[in-house]
Amino acid sequence: MLRLLSVNFRGLTEHKTLLSLNFSTSSVMAKSKFEYVRNFELDDTCLRNCYVVVRLDGRNFHKFSEQHNFMKPNDNRALGLMSHSARSVMEELEDITIAYGQSDEFSFVFKRSTTWFKRRASKLMTHVTSQFSSSFVYYWKEYFGEQPLRYPPSFDGRVVLYPSNRNLRDYLSWRQADCHINNLYNTTFWTLVQKGGLSTTQAEERLGGTQAAEKNEILFSEFNINYNNESPMYKKGTTLIWEKVNETTTKRIKQPDEGETEMNVTRTRKKVTSHSCDIIGDQFWEEHPDILESDQC
Amino acid sequence: MLRLLSVNFRGLTEHKTLLSLNFSTSSVMAKSKFEYVRNFELDDTCLRNCYVVVRLDGRNFHKFSEQHNFMKPNDNRALGLMSHSARSVMEELEDITIAYGQSDEFSFVFKRSTTWFKRRASKLMTHVTSQFSSSFVYYWKEYFGEQPLRYPPSFDGRVVLYPSNRNLRDYLSWRQADCHINNLYNTTFWTLVQKGGLSTTQAEERLGGTQAAEKNEILFSEFNINYNNESPMYKKGTTLIWEKVNETTTKRIKQPDEGETEMNVTRTRKKVTSHSCDIIGDQFWEEHPDILESDQC
Amino acid sequence: MLRLLSVNFRGLTEHKTLLSLNFSTSSVMAKSKFEYVRNFELDDTCLRNCYVVVRLDGRNFHKFSEQHNFMKPNDNRALGLMSHSARSVMEELEDITIAYGQSDEFSFVFKRSTTWFKRRASKLMTHVTSQFSSSFVYYWKEYFGEQPLRYPPSFDGRVVLYPSNRNLRDYLSWRQADCHINNLYNTTFWTLVQKGGLSTTQAEERLGGTQAAEKNEILFSEFNINYNNESPMYKKGTTLIWEKVNETTTKRIKQPDEGETEMNVTRTRKKVTSHSCDIIGDQFWEEHPDILESDQC
Amino acid sequence: MLRLLSVNFRGLTEHKTLLSLNFSTSSVMAKSKFEYVRNFELDDTCLRNCYVVVRLDGRNFHKFSEQHNFMKPNDNRALGLMSHSARSVMEELEDITIAYGQSDEFSFVFKRSTTWFKRRASKLMTHVTSQFSSSFVYYWKEYFGEQPLRYPPSFDGRVVLYPSNRNLRDYLSWRQADCHINNLYNTTFWTLVQKGGLSTTQAEERLGGTQAAEKNEILFSEFNINYNNESPMYKKGTTLIWEKVNETTTKRIKQPDEGETEMNVTRTRKKVTSHSCDIIGDQFWEEHPDILESDQC
Repeated sequence: MLRLLSVNFRGLTEHKTLLSLNFSTSSVMAKSKFEYVRNFELDDTCLRNCYVVVRLDGRNFHKFSEQHNFMKPNDNRALGLMSHSARSVMEELEDITIAYGQSDEFSFVFKRSTTWFKRRASKLMTHVTSQFSSSFVYYWKEYFGEQPLRYPPSFDGRVVLYPSNRNLRDYLSWRQADCHINNLYNTTFWTLVQKGGLSTTQAEERLGGTQAAEKNEILFSEFNINYNNESPMYKKGTTLIWEKVNETTTKRIKQPDEGETEMNVTRTRKKVTSHSCDIIGDQFWEEHPDILESDQC
Repeated sequence: MLRLLSVNFRGLTEHKTLLSLNFSTSSVMAKSKFEYVRNFELDDTCLRNCYVVVRLDGRNFHKFSEQHNFMKPNDNRALGLMSHSARSVMEELEDITIAYGQSDEFSFVFKRSTTWFKRRASKLMTHVTSQFSSSFVYYWKEYFGEQPLRYPPSFDGRVVLYPSNRNLRDYLSWRQADCHINNLYNTTFWTLVQKGGLSTTQAEERLGGTQAAEKNEILFSEFNINYNNESPMYKKGTTLIWEKVNETTTKRIKQPDEGETEMNVTRTRKKVTSHSCDIIGDQFWEEHPDILESDQC
Repeated sequence: MLRLLSVNFRGLTEHKTLLSLNFSTSSVMAKSKFEYVRNFELDDTCLRNCYVVVRLDGRNFHKFSEQHNFMKPNDNRALGLMSHSARSVMEELEDITIAYGQSDEFSFVFKRSTTWFKRRASKLMTHVTSQFSSSFVYYWKEYFGEQPLRYPPSFDGRVVLYPSNRNLRDYLSWRQADCHINNLYNTTFWTLVQKGGLSTTQAEERLGGTQAAEKNEILFSEFNINYNNESPMYKKGTTLIWEKVNETTTKRIKQPDEGETEMNVTRTRKKVTSHSCDIIGDQFWEEHPDILESDQC
Repeated sequence: MLRLLSVNFRGLTEHKTLLSLNFSTSSVMAKSKFEYVRNFELDDTCLRNCYVVVRLDGRNFHKFSEQHNFMKPNDNRALGLMSHSARSVMEELEDITIAYGQSDEFSFVFKRSTTWFKRRASKLMTHVTSQFSSSFVYYWKEYFGEQPLRYPPSFDGRVVLYPSNRNLRDYLSWRQADCHINNLYNTTFWTLVQKGGLSTTQAEERLGGTQAAEKNEILFSEFNINYNNESPMYKKGTTLIWEKVNETTTKRIKQPDEGETEMNVTRTRKKVTSHSCDIIGDQFWEEHPDILESDQC
């Protein structure tokens, strides 16, 4: 059965096990004999005062995207589902202050002072991976409607530590620069194929060795596409952070003498918000000073 | 977008990035400036010639089981779904030779010589966790029918290494002994509540400090339940292994002169099979000599 | 034999080994068969951008100090030898910017950007430990003169990483505060024994539960000792850093027409200097701004 | 001072520190404030049921051997000192069952069930390195007589784990095969130089690409040296193990009536013994069955 009793009960069983060792059946006695195997588990605590970054990557997502007819070069449904799953991770797991995603990857940043799960690397990365994966399936229908999910997809995860704000920002800049490079390539590639009539092989050859400027030029002069006007989400990826949001609701209140009146009640609460802006420069960080903790700690 | 191009393309981009560094836009140049952050990733290769065990545990499954009205002490739907998800992991990921599950946990054993994912602990544990989690949601409906899944569930994972066959068998014995102890307790507890009319607090008090023999006695003398006759799956948990299975299919074959005839074709293939038997003693291991690799290596 | 050929030769042997595999004697062939054991060595690279601290502690130094008749509570010869050994470590191993010692322990701080030995923890700690240990024996006679070293002493080492300047300074403050507490206790304890005629047991009882102020008071009112006037080296330990030092030497120079003249030549070079000052407050760090690297990196 | 009080006292200080926090001087208060830095130390426990091998290598020993006029290709004094230092390590540190050395390296094998220093890798490797290094200096004079040690030498260390007897034996075989290959090369090389009158460059060229058989042939046909007759210590290195040795001493005993008589008393005790034999084949291991622990554990 799935464990049906409270944590309290858990404690009790352990206790009982101890008490019963001397008198009970062989397999219970066996438990104590086997218990030594616990000591093979090694400690994987993350170094203190470092940002803990968990990055997820889709497994075999090239195949997955083909089997689910993703639009090329960007599929809004898939991108929306990725972000929704990431938001589900942030709302469920404490101490993630920022997450950044592009393509089939998403990075989650735990604050440097987190003590969540005693900073154990395995717990941090598996919980993020698990919550993301189950959310991806759970919310599939919201994004893909009647198009069915053909099999359960898989993501791998890893943990990387960053000791300083500079290192962390450079990590996120690295991912966003990667997003830019890939998206410019993919946009040009699929334009050549979809609008230019080239085969994928021809498009690959055409783009081999080209610089960013040349790709911009191809898009503009041959297809009249200004890359700058492409969707920010495609060019910049998706950044999720916690922000205070004012929520105004209208309440009807019964007054003793005057009857019912309407009142606007404004409540401030923290909410995960989504941004597709530059996170390489300083502006974003100056506007959201709470994301980073001081290096002086 | 989700990565839409082949692995081949991946290689190309990397190449291109390199080529374009000197000439292109600032954010591309930035990429090279940021790339150093890669070196913060630490190696977590598992020691060679050890069994790699990945164990998953449900997060907050007490609450989860209540919110989804699990039967107590054992819910066949939930146990079936756990096993199905575990089978999905085995079929998807190479080199898992045996898996064992009970309650809301499942352990997966990679063979000691595995080189899957270069034996990187983070890859091994996150892939298992991800595949299991997404499968749990994906196959939910097969087991729970119209009862909806209310939110995406989460599992945590860990990696433990075992250097010898004895250690590995003791690990699995430890989990099966744990299954036995918990199930005997839970069976007695819920019988006292459901059939004996006790409150959960009273049942807890009644069982405090009792031995296995006493619980057996309560079940037998007060409720006429012989614990030995309980379902093996409840008492022993679920063991999944790979076995060669003969599959006979009937084929219709057109013969040049005689017209169509039917033929039985028997094919042997490897398949994940499920067992609810004792894995503490030697018999199971003698019957399945291929699960373990020699200690002499 | 001790390896007698150059690094160059090392490379050659490896090469040759490879070439000779197919034709040579069984034990050479064996080499290739055995070589796989190399892969059991696990990576232990230290996280980048963190200070790497190696701390050494004497093993069984209570016994060692008794067997070598150390003066109590402080033995100048032993303290001098510890510092000399530490200086030998700093001069031999690159990238140590500061070292701090007290009692039978010494801490060595590698700069946060060090790439010495590829930041491998095992290399860093064993080299420090080895150089310190062999120096301790090598320079023994300079400090203990005719009193012989009775057996080779041993030190253990460990590596700890600190991500920020604050953390590193707090580490060093922790050790210096420890020095202060121990020295005040020991000074009072041995004064009670040596001048007050108490047994060690009586002195221990007398000091049980006393505060710093009370110990100061005992020293002052009963023995007319002002703790503040004790040697800074005892109270503050020993801090070693690199400093630019002007060295003036007199050179005799032959001039073509005038015969020989004397000239003072001043040369600046870096040298390990020793300090027994407070390193908890800001002053020391402001006076030596080169020890720390910026947190902004 | 070097810590002069007993372990007992250590405990007391800690206690006192705690008590005195609220009332004492700022730097004592500081101690509690700084103590958090302890938590940056990461656990490095070695996986259970694996052999723990610590290997030491001389640092810059090519230069060291030249500066101390080592005989080429093998210097008996240096080899003797290496072995003596290794014996000192085995006698001082518990649970080392076998050590193997050649050239400027030595490997120490802790038994797989050792709990020495809680199996902490850093403690194990630094203690071995420290004891070896201080012994090397301490015993120098016994081997090099009046030739002085010019500076304190340094060794680096590393830890490698081996899960099975086969792996451990293959590790030792790997080192012994390395010894053979290097010694055959060096013997031929230096014979060509010392007896054949070649320059070192010429000797290097002559040997480039040669097989073992060819080197044997050069030695035999050109210099009438049968490599098989070379010293086993050069060809096989040095293996140290614990053995029971009978020690017979003669005691004079006074008898009441007969006056004094002599008696032979034989006592068995464990002693480190040195061997220069093959450890690749089975014979050595069959003759010393206590070195390895069963894989069945």
